[in-house]
Amino acid sequence: MTQLVKVQNFVVSQDGFGAGEDQTLDRPFGHADPGTLFAWAGATASWPNRTEPGGSRGLDDYLTRDFANNIGAEIMGAHKFSPHRGPWRDHDWQGWWGDEPPFHTPVFVLTHHERPSFTLSDTTFHFVGGDPADVLRLAKEAAGGKDVRIGGGATTIRAFLDADLVDTLHVAVAPVSLGHGVALWKSPDELLDRFHLDVVPSSSGVVHHLFWRR
Amino acid sequence: MTQLVKVQNFVVSQDGFGAGEDQTLDRPFGHADPGTLFAWAGATASWPNRTEPGGSRGLDDYLTRDFANNIGAEIMGAHKFSPHRGPWRDHDWQGWWGDEPPFHTPVFVLTHHERPSFTLSDTTFHFVGGDPADVLRLAKEAAGGKDVRIGGGATTIRAFLDADLVDTLHVAVAPVSLGHGVALWKSPDELLDRFHLDVVPSSSGVVHHLFWRR
Repeated sequence: MTQLVKVQNFVVSQDGFGAGEDQTLDRPFGHADPGTLFAWAGATASWPNRTEPGGSRGLDDYLTRDFANNIGAEIMGAHKFSPHRGPWRDHDWQGWWGDEPPFHTPVFVLTHHERPSFTLSDTTFHFVGGDPADVLRLAKEAAGGKDVRIGGGATTIRAFLDADLVDTLHVAVAPVSLGHGVALWKSPDELLDRFHLDVVPSSSGVVHHLFWRR
Repeated sequence: MTQLVKVQNFVVSQDGFGAGEDQTLDRPFGHADPGTLFAWAGATASWPNRTEPGGSRGLDDYLTRDFANNIGAEIMGAHKFSPHRGPWRDHDWQGWWGDEPPFHTPVFVLTHHERPSFTLSDTTFHFVGGDPADVLRLAKEAAGGKDVRIGGGATTIRAFLDADLVDTLHVAVAPVSLGHGVALWKSPDELLDRFHLDVVPSSSGVVHHLFWRR
């Protein structure tokens, strides 16, 4: 069984930005509205944060419920974990996700600044430096044979793409433009030299882009 | 967690037939060629019968690998299990799937003719009569809280649809016409009074139809 390195359910604007600028504690996506970017996933029956029954069970639901399928570890950038910059001032901040983070695996947070690992429910956060290949080695080992998710943001995905370490990507292009922000790409065509691509429009308005290595 | 009743990865021709006529031991799909009907799934990385590495990891792969996701039991018609008609003459026939059937759960085979249960690897076949609601009750209990798959053929799916017992359906319409055979529908529009529908064309040529209850 191949151990894959996957990007899953990563959302960008039509102009290719995964987040806006000026990230703060209250605005993890900066000037971008995550409600708009993630509306397609939030409407599905499988959305992990769903509080009421119901939800759609069409195409978007397949992609949403595949999020945890055979994933054994996640790698995320420091800005996905926290709005802080520089050395950790305290260790009270434990991410945006509350006591039950939606990862359920070891998570490796890329940072130049040391910090002890900690566990919330069935998610353990580790803080690691090094280049993408080094971090991926740690994550693959922790994943116990399962796949490794590159969780974003856009800068982290770009770093792993530039090191040619990604096997598959699912990127949902939301029907919104941001103008500026943290860019994943100018165009999905940039990846076509290395990846096959299925472009799959959804009735929700997003266009799913499914890449796999040639 | 809702326990769903699902049709998954069921393939029909453009004219709505799930199988051809004149089923025999050598031709489980009658005059239809299963190689043509299932080419889209066989080309994916997740196809269970894949013998060589590789395979596509786009849209068709998502649908193929969701086949076993949270499924705790399957219900199938007698003609999916066997080409025999009438009382079982012997018990040597154990289905088309060899020593490792791809179900990995209890399977309830609809038949008017008694036969003892048997187990191959992690699949146990039970032979049951009664109306769809009765059989579904058995399957739900055996599924231990997981979902129940209605595995086909078309006649069995129709029976469960007519009894209004199906929550979601994934039907792949293959780019082939059969002219006659075992019909699932004249048109997918027949289900629109009771189901939402996402129609999702794939680059492989099949058109996925994803229905979920209104």
